[in-house]
Amino acid sequence: MNREDQGMPFLLKYENVAWYENGIVKILDRRVYPKEIKYVECYSYKDVVLAIQNLVTQSAGPYTAVGMGMALAAYESRNMKGEDRIKYLEKACEELKNSRVTTASRYGKITDRCLKIAKTSIINNVDPISAIVEDTINSLNRRYSTMQKVGDNLVKLIPENGTLLTQCYGETIIGALIRALKSRNKKIKVICAETRPFLQGARLTASCFAEEGFDTTVITDNMVADILSKGLIDVFTSAADTILEDGSVVNKVGTLQIALLCDNYNVPYYVTGIPDKGKKSREDIKIEMRNPEDVLVFNGVKHVNEKVKGYYPSFDYTDSKFVKCIVTDKGFFVPNELKKYFEQSTEEFY
Amino acid sequence: MNREDQGMPFLLKYENVAWYENGIVKILDRRVYPKEIKYVECYSYKDVVLAIQNLVTQSAGPYTAVGMGMALAAYESRNMKGEDRIKYLEKACEELKNSRVTTASRYGKITDRCLKIAKTSIINNVDPISAIVEDTINSLNRRYSTMQKVGDNLVKLIPENGTLLTQCYGETIIGALIRALKSRNKKIKVICAETRPFLQGARLTASCFAEEGFDTTVITDNMVADILSKGLIDVFTSAADTILEDGSVVNKVGTLQIALLCDNYNVPYYVTGIPDKGKKSREDIKIEMRNPEDVLVFNGVKHVNEKVKGYYPSFDYTDSKFVKCIVTDKGFFVPNELKKYFEQSTEEFY
Repeated sequence: MNREDQGMPFLLKYENVAWYENGIVKILDRRVYPKEIKYVECYSYKDVVLAIQNLVTQSAGPYTAVGMGMALAAYESRNMKGEDRIKYLEKACEELKNSRVTTASRYGKITDRCLKIAKTSIINNVDPISAIVEDTINSLNRRYSTMQKVGDNLVKLIPENGTLLTQCYGETIIGALIRALKSRNKKIKVICAETRPFLQGARLTASCFAEEGFDTTVITDNMVADILSKGLIDVFTSAADTILEDGSVVNKVGTLQIALLCDNYNVPYYVTGIPDKGKKSREDIKIEMRNPEDVLVFNGVKHVNEKVKGYYPSFDYTDSKFVKCIVTDKGFFVPNELKKYFEQSTEEFY
Repeated sequence: MNREDQGMPFLLKYENVAWYENGIVKILDRRVYPKEIKYVECYSYKDVVLAIQNLVTQSAGPYTAVGMGMALAAYESRNMKGEDRIKYLEKACEELKNSRVTTASRYGKITDRCLKIAKTSIINNVDPISAIVEDTINSLNRRYSTMQKVGDNLVKLIPENGTLLTQCYGETIIGALIRALKSRNKKIKVICAETRPFLQGARLTASCFAEEGFDTTVITDNMVADILSKGLIDVFTSAADTILEDGSVVNKVGTLQIALLCDNYNVPYYVTGIPDKGKKSREDIKIEMRNPEDVLVFNGVKHVNEKVKGYYPSFDYTDSKFVKCIVTDKGFFVPNELKKYFEQSTEEFY
């Protein structure tokens, strides 16, 4: 089977994202990487839902996890009769799709297709499991090659020997950017905001760049203005959980303030990804609130007084006025011209 | 002996700041509070220097620690002859004063006075230890009562049922503000930025407010713009490691970006403290760089790839244009009128 993960950092190899085999979905536990390399083993699609909700995997990881979760549901239901099996798979589809509210529409594109494939397989009396796995890998391949186009565009915007500031973990775009940099032998420095509370910047993004030989520095999230004021940053980039049609961005909480600070210091913010057709404005977005305890605890240790509360909006909303341009598979778009993106024919992405 | 710490939260009781007794200086370990209540025991002034450098205590804590450290040096040198003992105390004075570069001039005011008292005591053949301890407690009393004036002024700027955003741990002003709020029966909510890497906001400031019954919420440092954009904050306040004569502020890294973000969302930033006479501009300030490893570790666990570097400027510089007013013991000053502060007679503070 064709695979598009050659030359990718460890985190982006398919087996280290989410992988179905013999009735088990294995998901690399991003909550502890790189301190520990540990996989969460799921024996039911409900375990996959829980793993996504508990951030065992995040960013683009769940796109693969929900597909592999559908394969697992097909395995779980292998001894059921036709109609019962379809009902079971429909239930799995619903639950996997809605495991995180903010990105449910994207997850749904994958789970709905898996469900369709499963139904066709069951009607034709062939094994739906391998068909779902194959479709999930095809979907991964599609995303990796499409994101490579985005990476090939982003790399043009970073000056030689320049310094890139990142937020959270952009997943595929990080790997695609690294491949683009290496194939051009282009040197850059990277500064990763650590991205509390789960430290995806420090643990995931920084690991990818450092592993591939780039000069990589981690800062705490409160040092951004300080390094900007010292002129240390050339470009800020992030992926997005949603890119609205008007060019505004919903992404991991913290993106808004970095974008606003960059605007103040005249550092461009380039968001990367595939714009979300149909998401017209802020009102079309529901921002997920996560468990407030996550803010008060680290490595399982609670570090605050017991009467103290937490607050944890998963994402924030960055107005398009702070976005310099949207870097896509079809080139660069300033926010108020993003509508042109949708005028071109779009290939399937998820 | 008169004490000015009545009604103060646990962290601000004198014995929980730094305390000399029988040849030992005990310093509450703020690195682990409130998870653990643990004191670092110093048997030599050099242990006190190290404790300050390792952030066992911080903010205003070192002002007391260096005084108590001088008492300890007097104890250590109790069997030395006059001139040797004075030399020993001079050396202790230098090392304690310079334990942190950014605040050396403030520490020096205390250690220099302790040295003078010690010399007079030795010449007059009386015990210098109790004289130094007494002077250090007098200095604490002076700071607590002066900061109470600041707190009594700050409280006027916070609306009833308003929400206050804090950065790091303002030490005495936090206790003074709490006393001012309680004596007026004024209710406010408090949101504390956690202040990585040492989490002084989450662990220290939040503990003081929560302990005293205030509605207290901790956010990670990357959520500031998000809560500002939602209109959740009425006032931002911080203490300062230095307030320059032009009204700009040197304070724990992160202050700059909160101040800048508040400016963008029209939320006033009130810095509290005693302006530093003679610090005329940014060039008069040396910003201490701390151990980069501190950024890569959380609760004692290193969480990054071994090739990743850290970057840790202890403080940042906030231009006076982001400071709405400076709240002092003598009232409120807008930055460009701060010079008037120095026209009034100033009492000894340190």
